[in-house]
Amino acid sequence: MDSREPAVVTFSPSAELPPLSEQELAVLSQVGQDWSAGLPDWRRAEALPLDPALNQYPTPAPGRFSRIAPVGQFRTETPDRLVADQPEAPVSPEGGTLTRLRRVILGPPLNSAAVVQERIRKLIALPVLSSDLLSSVAYGPEAMLTVLVLAGASALRLTLPISLALVVLMVAVGLSYRQTIRAYPHGAGSYIVAGANLGSRLGLTAGAGLMMDYILTAAVSVASGVDAINSALPRLAPAAVPIGLAVLVMLLAGNLRGVRSAGKLFAAPTYAFVAAVFLLICFGLAQAARRGFTTLPPPRVPATEGLGVLLVLRAFASGATSMTGIEAVSNAVPVFKPVEWRNARTTLTWMVSLLILMFAGLIALIHLDGVAIKPNQTVLSQLAHLAFGEGPLYIFVQATTALILLLAANTAYQDFPRLLFFMARDGYAPRAFLRLGDRLVFSNGIILLTVAAAAILIAFHGRTQALIPLFAVGVFLAFTLSQVGMIRHWLREKGPHWRKNIVINGTGALLSGVVLVTAAFTKFVEGAWVVLAAVPIVILTALRIRRHYDAVQAALSPEPGEQGGEPRQEDGERPGQVLHMAVVPVARLDRAALRALAYAVSLGQPVFAVHVSPDDEEDDRFRHQWTYWGAHLRLEIIVSPHRAIIPTLSHYLQALHALRPDITLTVVLPEVVVKQWWHRPLHHHDARRLRRAVRPLPGIVVTSVPVHVRG
Amino acid sequence: MDSREPAVVTFSPSAELPPLSEQELAVLSQVGQDWSAGLPDWRRAEALPLDPALNQYPTPAPGRFSRIAPVGQFRTETPDRLVADQPEAPVSPEGGTLTRLRRVILGPPLNSAAVVQERIRKLIALPVLSSDLLSSVAYGPEAMLTVLVLAGASALRLTLPISLALVVLMVAVGLSYRQTIRAYPHGAGSYIVAGANLGSRLGLTAGAGLMMDYILTAAVSVASGVDAINSALPRLAPAAVPIGLAVLVMLLAGNLRGVRSAGKLFAAPTYAFVAAVFLLICFGLAQAARRGFTTLPPPRVPATEGLGVLLVLRAFASGATSMTGIEAVSNAVPVFKPVEWRNARTTLTWMVSLLILMFAGLIALIHLDGVAIKPNQTVLSQLAHLAFGEGPLYIFVQATTALILLLAANTAYQDFPRLLFFMARDGYAPRAFLRLGDRLVFSNGIILLTVAAAAILIAFHGRTQALIPLFAVGVFLAFTLSQVGMIRHWLREKGPHWRKNIVINGTGALLSGVVLVTAAFTKFVEGAWVVLAAVPIVILTALRIRRHYDAVQAALSPEPGEQGGEPRQEDGERPGQVLHMAVVPVARLDRAALRALAYAVSLGQPVFAVHVSPDDEEDDRFRHQWTYWGAHLRLEIIVSPHRAIIPTLSHYLQALHALRPDITLTVVLPEVVVKQWWHRPLHHHDARRLRRAVRPLPGIVVTSVPVHVRG
Repeated sequence: MDSREPAVVTFSPSAELPPLSEQELAVLSQVGQDWSAGLPDWRRAEALPLDPALNQYPTPAPGRFSRIAPVGQFRTETPDRLVADQPEAPVSPEGGTLTRLRRVILGPPLNSAAVVQERIRKLIALPVLSSDLLSSVAYGPEAMLTVLVLAGASALRLTLPISLALVVLMVAVGLSYRQTIRAYPHGAGSYIVAGANLGSRLGLTAGAGLMMDYILTAAVSVASGVDAINSALPRLAPAAVPIGLAVLVMLLAGNLRGVRSAGKLFAAPTYAFVAAVFLLICFGLAQAARRGFTTLPPPRVPATEGLGVLLVLRAFASGATSMTGIEAVSNAVPVFKPVEWRNARTTLTWMVSLLILMFAGLIALIHLDGVAIKPNQTVLSQLAHLAFGEGPLYIFVQATTALILLLAANTAYQDFPRLLFFMARDGYAPRAFLRLGDRLVFSNGIILLTVAAAAILIAFHGRTQALIPLFAVGVFLAFTLSQVGMIRHWLREKGPHWRKNIVINGTGALLSGVVLVTAAFTKFVEGAWVVLAAVPIVILTALRIRRHYDAVQAALSPEPGEQGGEPRQEDGERPGQVLHMAVVPVARLDRAALRALAYAVSLGQPVFAVHVSPDDEEDDRFRHQWTYWGAHLRLEIIVSPHRAIIPTLSHYLQALHALRPDITLTVVLPEVVVKQWWHRPLHHHDARRLRRAVRPLPGIVVTSVPVHVRG
Repeated sequence: MDSREPAVVTFSPSAELPPLSEQELAVLSQVGQDWSAGLPDWRRAEALPLDPALNQYPTPAPGRFSRIAPVGQFRTETPDRLVADQPEAPVSPEGGTLTRLRRVILGPPLNSAAVVQERIRKLIALPVLSSDLLSSVAYGPEAMLTVLVLAGASALRLTLPISLALVVLMVAVGLSYRQTIRAYPHGAGSYIVAGANLGSRLGLTAGAGLMMDYILTAAVSVASGVDAINSALPRLAPAAVPIGLAVLVMLLAGNLRGVRSAGKLFAAPTYAFVAAVFLLICFGLAQAARRGFTTLPPPRVPATEGLGVLLVLRAFASGATSMTGIEAVSNAVPVFKPVEWRNARTTLTWMVSLLILMFAGLIALIHLDGVAIKPNQTVLSQLAHLAFGEGPLYIFVQATTALILLLAANTAYQDFPRLLFFMARDGYAPRAFLRLGDRLVFSNGIILLTVAAAAILIAFHGRTQALIPLFAVGVFLAFTLSQVGMIRHWLREKGPHWRKNIVINGTGALLSGVVLVTAAFTKFVEGAWVVLAAVPIVILTALRIRRHYDAVQAALSPEPGEQGGEPRQEDGERPGQVLHMAVVPVARLDRAALRALAYAVSLGQPVFAVHVSPDDEEDDRFRHQWTYWGAHLRLEIIVSPHRAIIPTLSHYLQALHALRPDITLTVVLPEVVVKQWWHRPLHHHDARRLRRAVRPLPGIVVTSVPVHVRG
């Protein structure tokens, strides 16, 4: 984000361990020199009682207490390098059921080496990347009509001019993105382009807009796909929300499993949908031709609003949702076969041409057939009914529509986690989004998207037209910022034809900006405010997250020796600096306590025991037992007449630390571990509670010495 | 439970540390002798770098990183004995708000020394202990009428003979309990008496019956008290359940705060209720006398059931709920002034006499006035209306009724936790019920009772008459077992008059048994099955709990040296036996990791580091950094191509343990602790997850080395 040119798009499984800078390495080396002095001799491997490479010993037979030992799972490649083969044996018996369930749903974990990007041909890339864009014609024209019809059926005559304006917009944005792809061949997402050219804040703004866009794409596509099904099967209409949620869960499972860009699988429905729409357009136009292209009058609809400029603008902004998804190619430039940018550009041109043809054809049909809005029937379904009646061709149109909308939702499942990965890499999103899951997908982003889309689907009762007002703002925010970023780019780079490029991107930016402002203003009350409120919240959160990460990194970066300045708290990063004292809290003198005491003593550092008594009677009783045992260690009894054990111990440790902050106090906790979870309520959890209580305290190390009991 | 005579009733705060037997002490001493050999010299207190008694140092000023040090809170009494003065300063800033809220509701914690029992006079004991018993007349007669009226108004003529039988029952059970008090002056609860004489299983049966009884007492008394309010204010009727729950929450808070047997507070309402009932009886009888004791006919009620023996028995069993609470005195013998048993007996006699008078008087009035059941009006309210109209005397009757029912519910709050304490002391209930809370009450028992009573109140919609069928079974189960236990007691002891005593207790047992069987059979379908099913479940659970505790105790009791036999797992109870090796999992070379490494090295035991890489790239990258640092320790890199970190580490540790089970592996975990809880989602929690994963593994000690960062 800080460099002008974006980095190469890599989804590395090791993104969590970034390389260190020269300076950081130098510090590390200096810290290491401080260690050299005073390190004991046994640090050489030979002195270890057990070879960490596991390779000197025969695999042991399963013992009485241990399950089958997982030694065989590790392959020794070199003495200091092991490879774990089957990491998914359950860690604990209880975890077993969950692990097995996960395996059934997700399949076996994939090897990191499989992350290599597949390159795809244009013919496959087209359907894979265009499902989001092309599917938009299933709801875009309808969204426009829904607004126009508010001013009565007569207002529908404005369909044609508005559509013309939209086609101009599509061409302009398409051309604009062609430029972007050329300039950013490693991936030209709006977040990256805006961030690289306009600074991190505007990059985050574009990112926030895109996040909204992806969430809404998932929600709107699913809702619209369910509409397509319900238009054909009206009896399912009341169950729209549950059906939508079920689809989201399927998408979740499929994407967690890793429905990779499996070309052929995706190609068929997209081509089928394109075929269905063109078939519909041809049939419709043929019918219209038979009657001499006379325009049928739309049904009478009473006007509920006056026909003003505002309404026209609203219709325009709603219709603009037909071009959501146009940015898909620019995100995916690196997956094309070489020359990547050239193939990507060609694909984009095809896509936009297809979009314009389909959009214009459908608008023409709508106009000729005099179609208006029906409550339980999508516009596409009405057109298909008019053209094909009830027959198999009608079913074909509805089925391919539902299918491509599903695929479009799936695009969001590809893009949203990728965007969060980029943001997390820059420190603007939780680091958890960097982690590649079992199946080499960003599971956390996938889960977050599902939760967000499900929440929106439920909140808006699964009604597509209620979601549309939220939709345009985020998309066009990202479009606009990306194009403005490109203007800046050309101004800086001044490559060949830079003036022409600026004009193209400038037109794109201007038109996108008009849609953005129109959508934001005219649909504010209807729902755009949700997005307009969410974007700054996302940006602020992202900036706070970055600030936190920066602070943590500063606090955790190693520093060379104490060259003046106030020493940092919990310094002891060099062995010589650590001064030990161990405290063993003992409640009763059972095996658990004796084991903890023995452990503490055997470390060879100073140790004492502490016991908290609620009254004098227990004090005497415990002392008596301690004496019988031989009183081998210093015992301190704290009488806590108010019976609080954990707070008393915690305060006592705080007091010890306050008196000698230079000593590292190790609390050695005896911990009884029962085998069955249902036995846990039968035991106090003082060890766990104490661990939690001292967690925020400085200079206190907690050691749990477990004793496992069955019964 | 195992000894024939029950132990003295003591609620010691130190019940969790019972004294050891001679044999156990001998074992402990032997174990201690094993320790003597090979213990280092520094175990003497002088060698500790910091005096655990805290008394050598000036109190430090609050530092930059520490809050005010709580050194001043500890008072050094002797060098090895501290007293904690104000243990309730919040442990952590987040805990502060909760702690303060708790203090506001519960008041400051009480000193253990305050647990000394107060002794009470008979005149105070009577109201304190009788609220449960006497309040029963508020619902008992009504419960009987509710059943009888099912056979039509004419069946109400059977009220008198059934009531006569009930009075005989009251006398018999009262006499029987007089005997019990004499024989068990240290506390004669049914659980203890039945357990001591009939064995632990029948003791548990009585205990389970009593548990049901106490829960139902709380629920029924609250429901009935709400009925009394709603009879006077019918508009509140729909809110019966919320009002009842609010009352339970008040009882919860009051009892957690420790509404101790504050004599005077309890005396007034009970005496007022007794006065109100007698006033009502006198007024009613005077009215009846004026009309020459002619019986008014009850309102016509259509019969819904035939009048058979079964119905009469059901009415009898329902009416028997009038005597619930009769056992209260026997539980509380030790709180009387000496001679305890004599005073307790006298009080019991008074109580039963009062009960019989009030019961008989009310039945007479019901009969004379021809009162039957009304849906929104209790019988007592009807009688009061007839006697006093709407005036202040009516209000007085209703108010005192509601109040005494509240007190009766409060008795359950005294007895239920005490019963659980006894059961926990014997190992039949979770040990958590042994713990005295801040306010010297058994908080856990109080909370459990509230939850159970609230659940019942909600499940039965707060209707008193729906709860009555559940009620009788538990009480009379406990009564019967207690009396049978007494027969056994006399047969064994054969003190003076033992034959006469057997006759008295035998009569009590027989009559109680008849009610028990009647209630169980006639009310099985109506709800008694709930109790009949719950009692065996409670017994089985109690036995399982005891078995678990026995097994754990056996597993945890120390054993002297290895004189043959298979050595137990995780033996190492003597310092010489512990062979150490430390493993430091390092994700990146930051301060947290360096501190953990330094800590591990400074312990002076063999250490190596382990890093899990998702791919070769990270392997190389980490090794590079490690070399820069100086590679001071043996590093083992595990490549986990499936990216699982925690399972891989856990399996690796298992493998190490399997190869050398004699080595105690210490996992030294670097742990970054952030200050604010809302920063936690920004960090991975591998340390916590690893700790949880290795918890069930044998021979692995986990040490958390925290580094606190702000930001």
